[in-house]
Amino acid sequence: MFINTKSSFKKTLKTQIFKMNIFFIIDILGLISFAISGALVAFNKKMDVFGVLIIAFVTSVGGGTLSDVLLGNMPVGWMENIMFSYIILGSAIFAIIFRSKINYLRTSLFLFDTIGIGLYTLLGIEKGLVAELHPIICIALGTMTASFGGVIRDILCNEIPIIFRKEVYATACILGGITYFTLIQFPIKENFVLVISGSVVIAVRLIAVKFKISLPNIYSKEM
Amino acid sequence: MFINTKSSFKKTLKTQIFKMNIFFIIDILGLISFAISGALVAFNKKMDVFGVLIIAFVTSVGGGTLSDVLLGNMPVGWMENIMFSYIILGSAIFAIIFRSKINYLRTSLFLFDTIGIGLYTLLGIEKGLVAELHPIICIALGTMTASFGGVIRDILCNEIPIIFRKEVYATACILGGITYFTLIQFPIKENFVLVISGSVVIAVRLIAVKFKISLPNIYSKEM
Amino acid sequence: MFINTKSSFKKTLKTQIFKMNIFFIIDILGLISFAISGALVAFNKKMDVFGVLIIAFVTSVGGGTLSDVLLGNMPVGWMENIMFSYIILGSAIFAIIFRSKINYLRTSLFLFDTIGIGLYTLLGIEKGLVAELHPIICIALGTMTASFGGVIRDILCNEIPIIFRKEVYATACILGGITYFTLIQFPIKENFVLVISGSVVIAVRLIAVKFKISLPNIYSKEM
Repeated sequence: MFINTKSSFKKTLKTQIFKMNIFFIIDILGLISFAISGALVAFNKKMDVFGVLIIAFVTSVGGGTLSDVLLGNMPVGWMENIMFSYIILGSAIFAIIFRSKINYLRTSLFLFDTIGIGLYTLLGIEKGLVAELHPIICIALGTMTASFGGVIRDILCNEIPIIFRKEVYATACILGGITYFTLIQFPIKENFVLVISGSVVIAVRLIAVKFKISLPNIYSKEM
Repeated sequence: MFINTKSSFKKTLKTQIFKMNIFFIIDILGLISFAISGALVAFNKKMDVFGVLIIAFVTSVGGGTLSDVLLGNMPVGWMENIMFSYIILGSAIFAIIFRSKINYLRTSLFLFDTIGIGLYTLLGIEKGLVAELHPIICIALGTMTASFGGVIRDILCNEIPIIFRKEVYATACILGGITYFTLIQFPIKENFVLVISGSVVIAVRLIAVKFKISLPNIYSKEM
Repeated sequence: MFINTKSSFKKTLKTQIFKMNIFFIIDILGLISFAISGALVAFNKKMDVFGVLIIAFVTSVGGGTLSDVLLGNMPVGWMENIMFSYIILGSAIFAIIFRSKINYLRTSLFLFDTIGIGLYTLLGIEKGLVAELHPIICIALGTMTASFGGVIRDILCNEIPIIFRKEVYATACILGGITYFTLIQFPIKENFVLVISGSVVIAVRLIAVKFKISLPNIYSKEM
């Protein structure tokens, strides 16, 4: 660190700021996606305005909150930066106003939820890397960050949590994480690695649901 | 701080001790209300004695534990002060002994639960103010502190969490929080502000359930 | 501390290392028991391979994570020692490969789950003692450590959490905890105390389920 030349220091700084920017943008996009996905589930449940706002909020910050708590980053992120709350509330109000335009509720919900898990998987992995944890732990953090908001949303709405079984939820997160740690072995720019890994999460889930693909069955017929 | 005159310092100290006392009393009353509400739900489920004690405990400390964890106040409050446990266990045992006298179970449960959320909303807001957080975050903390114990209670008892839909739960907390932050703009003594805000939470919920009032419907008929 | 003679210091050190070993072994055995119990529930739900791994993971680390978080021990244990993950994944893969040999699924599940709660009750009590907390709080920590993994497992699998009602779950943990704090009053070696207290948890649950014993009914017939 100390023997950095001035120019390499500048480069490091620039990379740091770039990384901050990338993850900041990912965080914002994830917040918006999950806020809208939360609002859509709350609409289905005919909740009142405050109910919709709260479900949007919980869905957005749930996963990040869990990973912050497990890592000991407290007060958790959304408490210290009020902008997060404004973005979530703004997205939820947007969804409330244009709810009649969001015609195909089920499809929209699925799409926003899927984009959200793709983005938050990356965010969770990054948090693990910052804390210098093992790749397996980073992937676990990514999966939790991606899925916990949706799990809380479903529990509070009395929906069966859709994680795991029907929609290849966790599998998509784990495959995205494995892609990330495979690609960073190669000399590829980190933002490409991020875009590819996030796309893997989204693609795996979309394709699996579209074509009703699932992992090889481990259950013999007599079971 | 350092240029305080002796008298203003004394006044600050007195205010501090007074505030501590007020919030201490609110905390105790909240513990008792939620412990009894937890015990009543556990009775409905025909739980054994230990089950009743645990549900009473979880309902009482759940909300405060969540807000302590999110703020990074660990070990959480009830672990460091054994008096909390004695009060909760005492309330639960009281409820067990006099359960036949608590005739109208549903009404009692609803009343104790409502008083609990009123008190804990104030407690959560105060925690947020101590951590110097934004009013929106303070209201979120108040709502979580008030509702999380009941949510865990309901999940552990296999009841559908009553938050949000049927009983204007979160709406009452949020309106109470807005009342608090509106009133402290005016030169009103803080204990009055607390009493009024807490009463707003309780009144909103009672009136809404009594007269089956809900927020303006945001759903058009064709949905 | 400072006036310890060299020999008593050595003895203390030896005891420390011994205690570390004992609790390390208990932790490992608990991880394996709960990982297999989680995998068995996931099999019942016909989950895919990743789903089974995740449920095994969550069941194993859930209780310890909760108690670590409440005590402020972050990053939580399993994140800092990758060996825990290997043991859990290994146990889950073992369960996947030999799932057809584990014939009596229900019985096996019940047995592994019961051994797990016995071991984790001790682990939670120990964590409370290390943090110098009151015995009641230690027993609460033991009960949470023992039961929370199973509760999350059941919630994620859409099973009704089996805690409390049917299988004398919490009662067993509390009785084991009371046994522990009773026995350490007497001049008995600590490893015996641990073995006896853990056995009490396991025995209480096994006997209660086997003979359909429950605590004295606190409900009068007219209720």
